[in-house]
Amino acid sequence: MQIPVIRNVLEANEKKAEQVRARLRSGRILALNLISSPGAGKTSLLERTLRDLGGTFRMAVIEGDLQTTNDAERVAATGAQAVQINTEGGCHLNSDMVSQALDKLDLNGLDILFIENVGNLVCPVEFDCGEDAKLALLSVAEGDDKPEKYPLLFNLAKAMVLNKTDLLPYVSFDLARARAFASKLNKDLRIFELSCRSGQGLDAWYAWLAEERAGKLHGR
Amino acid sequence: MQIPVIRNVLEANEKKAEQVRARLRSGRILALNLISSPGAGKTSLLERTLRDLGGTFRMAVIEGDLQTTNDAERVAATGAQAVQINTEGGCHLNSDMVSQALDKLDLNGLDILFIENVGNLVCPVEFDCGEDAKLALLSVAEGDDKPEKYPLLFNLAKAMVLNKTDLLPYVSFDLARARAFASKLNKDLRIFELSCRSGQGLDAWYAWLAEERAGKLHGR
Repeated sequence: MQIPVIRNVLEANEKKAEQVRARLRSGRILALNLISSPGAGKTSLLERTLRDLGGTFRMAVIEGDLQTTNDAERVAATGAQAVQINTEGGCHLNSDMVSQALDKLDLNGLDILFIENVGNLVCPVEFDCGEDAKLALLSVAEGDDKPEKYPLLFNLAKAMVLNKTDLLPYVSFDLARARAFASKLNKDLRIFELSCRSGQGLDAWYAWLAEERAGKLHGR
Repeated sequence: MQIPVIRNVLEANEKKAEQVRARLRSGRILALNLISSPGAGKTSLLERTLRDLGGTFRMAVIEGDLQTTNDAERVAATGAQAVQINTEGGCHLNSDMVSQALDKLDLNGLDILFIENVGNLVCPVEFDCGEDAKLALLSVAEGDDKPEKYPLLFNLAKAMVLNKTDLLPYVSFDLARARAFASKLNKDLRIFELSCRSGQGLDAWYAWLAEERAGKLHGR
């Protein structure tokens, strides 16, 4: 009995996701769905990006969390628009939550929408939120075996950010191994190695964002 | 329609969990359910514990993962019994999986059973696996706000391990803040600060394990 119910839930989510996508497309807004373990640095990456590119793009963030508005507050402190979704224990965002959050944002002239999902490498991957692309984040403190152990995310993501590279001297993390596993799962995966703390590697990430945004603008 | 189905699933899980618990109780086996984010160091803590206490206790491990047998292999290399459960994308273990895994273990004379759950701070918390206690692990690389953001685990756990303390000089993690939040959620929570890499702090963890095991033996 459980399986058809789950299928209905996923189908309803997919339908709403297409509506969200159409709405964002009409505004030529690039939407990225950030997925990672808890504490991999999604909010830190957004804080840096919003500060560094705030003069270039108009950006907004939908923050997903079980509890607290901590992350929305961190993001709002950069001056960007932020909406917090509290899932009250739910393990992922869905397209209906994102649709409701869009109603609270001023989409006029917006260039990029970031959706920061609940920290979880499993469940968020299955729920399309109407984004253009999923972005997988992995902190080097988590271990280089994560693409192999949580393959679906790395298979579906358009890009992977290997974050906290400033910790590389202090942890056992083989960058080549992580890259190789992820690329095996997804040969088109773009990979960025960076540190939100030191700033190293952010330029390549910013260049990719600009490319993706330009692609969206020209309907690619 | 979804809610009653989920309730049925949880009720069926609870029933089977009681059977697992009865089975473990009859063998006076202490069972601990380890829950954390991906890469917080569950397997590393088990590797250290199995090696260091292998002469004192007979221990076995049930390893839960979406894919791969990596962790069971790491654990088996210490000489301990290990069974791998692959959830094939499932985001948590349940009591039926654990029950089936028990059939593959020699429970005779076993002192401690560790259940290493799927790396996920949300879903595993809701599924009783028949354990005596849940153990929450948190790596200091993940940030001190995790007890506040994922409260249910820290509320239900009997103990919390703050792992990777060797990284403290290189990350922004306020031990007092993490301890305070966790203790607010759960005033009886035992807290261990340790590093599986350096070995610092392991003694207190081992002493607690011995206490818990003695309590089990004497039916406390």
